[in-house]
Amino acid sequence: MKIRHATDTDRDAVWNIFHEVAADGDTYALDPNISREDALAYWFAPGTHTFVAEQPAIGIAGTYILRPNQLGGGSHVVNAGFMVSTSARGRGIGRAMAEHCLSEALRLGFRAMQFNYVISTNTSAIRLWQDLGFEIVGTLPDAFCHPRKGYVDVHVMYRSLVP
Amino acid sequence: MKIRHATDTDRDAVWNIFHEVAADGDTYALDPNISREDALAYWFAPGTHTFVAEQPAIGIAGTYILRPNQLGGGSHVVNAGFMVSTSARGRGIGRAMAEHCLSEALRLGFRAMQFNYVISTNTSAIRLWQDLGFEIVGTLPDAFCHPRKGYVDVHVMYRSLVP
Repeated sequence: MKIRHATDTDRDAVWNIFHEVAADGDTYALDPNISREDALAYWFAPGTHTFVAEQPAIGIAGTYILRPNQLGGGSHVVNAGFMVSTSARGRGIGRAMAEHCLSEALRLGFRAMQFNYVISTNTSAIRLWQDLGFEIVGTLPDAFCHPRKGYVDVHVMYRSLVP
Repeated sequence: MKIRHATDTDRDAVWNIFHEVAADGDTYALDPNISREDALAYWFAPGTHTFVAEQPAIGIAGTYILRPNQLGGGSHVVNAGFMVSTSARGRGIGRAMAEHCLSEALRLGFRAMQFNYVISTNTSAIRLWQDLGFEIVGTLPDAFCHPRKGYVDVHVMYRSLVP
């Protein structure tokens, strides 16, 4: 698997994955009917580092973004978002992107990484982040309306990147 | 004091307050050199309810915004932001806007209110929110670089709006 910066020619593949994830509506607080234009504007926003994970047989199997979580006095903390194609799940693509993302964040000089919105039912993501040293530093009660489970908690996860 | 929806004619006054708060750089993670255009685009963004607090002798003394904190399954939680003119502080304008904001949020049908980024040194804001029923539900270690105090913690605060 190769993880590399996304280019304009990856936009179709990224939109396919984004659309799947948004339509599922159980891991991100996104409009399930978001347009291709709005989705790509969000995922390729100015100041955002956008990556894709490419597998020989499959093509683009996942994508992730890195960007400062805040401006000014908060710009040393980076935020990230990850999406894996439904058909490519369970093959370690999320973990490979997560490890790549941590080393990119270090390389870019960020001091910490924060996930603002990890839905508590997304246990595989939570386990992965905990494996990689993240802690749940906050819980938002009933902050997400899950399409099948109703109101569920959301976690804020955080990891320092400095020794 | 009158608290009302902001209109286009309030833009100069709102920018004056925004500029002061951003330049101080100790209560918001904003670019201290943010342009008027970017500031007003943020404060008057589509989907944002923008209010001003007007006092007879002073004019516009404060401003606040209300907007969904997330899209899709997270859109029942509202986020708010408050700014008071330096010269008008200590007169209860923040508290009056906070109370107004809670009743507006209820009126608009939101189920909870969340502050994503309450800097731990901003003790008067934290006290006000706790007085109004908010809890610190998370703490981000060293997430803000304070212009005089260096790296300080940031709190996530939350309050349910349903019985």
